[in-house]
Amino acid sequence: MEVAVIGVGQTSFGTFPKKSLKALFFEAFQEALRDVEKGLDPKEIEEAWIGTLSTGGGQLGNQAALLCETVGLAGVSAHHVENACASGGFAFRNAVMAIRSGRCRVAMAAGIEKMTDLPRERNRLWLGVSGDVEWERLAGTNFPGIYAMLARRHMYEHGTLKEWITGVAVKNHANAVHNPKAQFRFPIDLERAMRAPMLADPLTVFDACGITDGAAVAIVCRADEARRYTDRPVMVMGSGAATDYLAIHDRKDLTGLLAARKAAAQAYKEAGVGPKDIQVAEVHDCFTIAEIMAYEDLGFCEDGQGGFLIRDGLTKLDGPIPVNPSGGLKAKGHPIGATGIGQICEIVHQLRGDVQEPIRQVKGARIGLTHNVGGSGGTAVVHIFRSPE
Amino acid sequence: MEVAVIGVGQTSFGTFPKKSLKALFFEAFQEALRDVEKGLDPKEIEEAWIGTLSTGGGQLGNQAALLCETVGLAGVSAHHVENACASGGFAFRNAVMAIRSGRCRVAMAAGIEKMTDLPRERNRLWLGVSGDVEWERLAGTNFPGIYAMLARRHMYEHGTLKEWITGVAVKNHANAVHNPKAQFRFPIDLERAMRAPMLADPLTVFDACGITDGAAVAIVCRADEARRYTDRPVMVMGSGAATDYLAIHDRKDLTGLLAARKAAAQAYKEAGVGPKDIQVAEVHDCFTIAEIMAYEDLGFCEDGQGGFLIRDGLTKLDGPIPVNPSGGLKAKGHPIGATGIGQICEIVHQLRGDVQEPIRQVKGARIGLTHNVGGSGGTAVVHIFRSPE
Repeated sequence: MEVAVIGVGQTSFGTFPKKSLKALFFEAFQEALRDVEKGLDPKEIEEAWIGTLSTGGGQLGNQAALLCETVGLAGVSAHHVENACASGGFAFRNAVMAIRSGRCRVAMAAGIEKMTDLPRERNRLWLGVSGDVEWERLAGTNFPGIYAMLARRHMYEHGTLKEWITGVAVKNHANAVHNPKAQFRFPIDLERAMRAPMLADPLTVFDACGITDGAAVAIVCRADEARRYTDRPVMVMGSGAATDYLAIHDRKDLTGLLAARKAAAQAYKEAGVGPKDIQVAEVHDCFTIAEIMAYEDLGFCEDGQGGFLIRDGLTKLDGPIPVNPSGGLKAKGHPIGATGIGQICEIVHQLRGDVQEPIRQVKGARIGLTHNVGGSGGTAVVHIFRSPE
Repeated sequence: MEVAVIGVGQTSFGTFPKKSLKALFFEAFQEALRDVEKGLDPKEIEEAWIGTLSTGGGQLGNQAALLCETVGLAGVSAHHVENACASGGFAFRNAVMAIRSGRCRVAMAAGIEKMTDLPRERNRLWLGVSGDVEWERLAGTNFPGIYAMLARRHMYEHGTLKEWITGVAVKNHANAVHNPKAQFRFPIDLERAMRAPMLADPLTVFDACGITDGAAVAIVCRADEARRYTDRPVMVMGSGAATDYLAIHDRKDLTGLLAARKAAAQAYKEAGVGPKDIQVAEVHDCFTIAEIMAYEDLGFCEDGQGGFLIRDGLTKLDGPIPVNPSGGLKAKGHPIGATGIGQICEIVHQLRGDVQEPIRQVKGARIGLTHNVGGSGGTAVVHIFRSPE
């Protein structure tokens, strides 16, 4: 059973002290419903997955049921999925499996995070409690530190220059300027970013994403019924997912993420396409170095050559393989659980050719990919999509 | 694609200050592997779901990946599922869908909770943070209070007597005496339980389950390949799930759980059987009144007559429809995320006829049911199983 995306919606990503968890979710859900061209009765949604790590608002359990009742879906079978920063992508993977299994005709995959009002214990997530707490966090390291080590190793093994790494941020900020839903809508220049306060050498504050509130929703259905809902269904060609040791000291290689490589291989196999067929991608640039590694993990270039794609401008909006046209986690924002679904929203618009800001529209893209990573590579999930015929 | 359970395992349920989260999971996983009669190479497991609310040990995110690497499954696609006290049951539902979808041949569903070492913020879960925090918890109520209101309403509308409600605890403690893995292996008498310290009128401490550590694992595969692994595969006949308003003031009826009714209807429909066909059941008795309501929600009796089943001893081990032969949440223990999978372990043993303690074995049971509820009925999931041919 093939699966199609029939509607997507997301809030702006940013800091929203006046919007509750429920309000954010409602906004994204309503936008997704409106996005279903020929209309969808919400009651047709039979199963829902909501990805979130540590939702604000004080609710500790049963979040999926609570958010479903908030948008009028009380009664639906709902699941809360948590795979750190990859929660949204894994929520989508479950929805795809549910449709393929014949369990339901229409399903919802969503993601949400309200990070700016988290209580202290849960706000520590930023410091690395989705890495290996026992062996990494309690030894004093954290996510900026871990990604800094990965960056240093990449520089050491492959001669990657710091300016190429930070060049990821420059590119993604440039894209976000044209995305009204992005958190950081301003350009940055390389000099300034390189001189910015250091987080963990070689990564400065401009090499890291921010703390973000946001929600995103995608509605999927059986492909053979998709035309009832829209003339422009986007097909799910492949889904791949994998895990890895959380602690990086357990891994054989520090210049890439094995989970992402396995997830990509599975997704490419299901889709029957290869890296060269991908015409637009949203990848998980929680730190700039992560996007360089993603190029290699996804096969967009040979191992070790990710930096050249930035040096040569190949992944800019007008390059041969535009990456993170939305601005990416770096500049669009990274509301943990919402990120994976937000990536899917962007790719769906790109493949339908209806990105609202023409300057961000990748012309004629037919096949797109999303790449969503949890923690420092403990989990990863990749999806490949095809534009409407 | 039909689905079969080929192996189950669980730790003892109780208070284990010397066993880490990882140690508990390892123990349950190893037992499940050993339970696969003809052996299973763990590498055949392609996809895993782990249910947990708020795992101890300090790990906040990526728990599924962490636990998978602990048992040698690094690399597998793993998902952490959280639906409050129904997390385990929903993890199983996802694994069933994955097999049905053709995504994988062998999958794992697991549950775990280490409640006795939770930091203060997360230990508040017991007080009702899986109910509606905004509208119930912040108004001062908590789970004992909510279930006390449900009990009072049942007594008022249906003339249910307090001694029948507490009779659930007496029955379940009597069963747990014969279960070496149960947390509370002692009989209680009705008089003493009725006079015990009051939690929330009419519920005393003997009407509530405890705080528990534990883990449980179930391994499923495509039914057409099950005989490669075991001569006694237990078939999954049906899976049903639903949600409801978290806050009970939003519900039309307070004498039953609508989510459980919907989940049961869906499971019965898939299974092609009805309540009269069920010969053994594990139901969610977080409070004694919950088991009375479960009898009605599952159709074991007419609405309002749940109390009579206890009064007349119909759900005792030697009754026509034995319920909670394991001791139930009340006496076997309730390690939140592990509970739903623990129920499945018990039913699988019951249907294979290999319960280790003959006195707990329900003779000749061919069809069994599990009923797992999240919070005070915000989520519910029901599974129906058939014994090996």
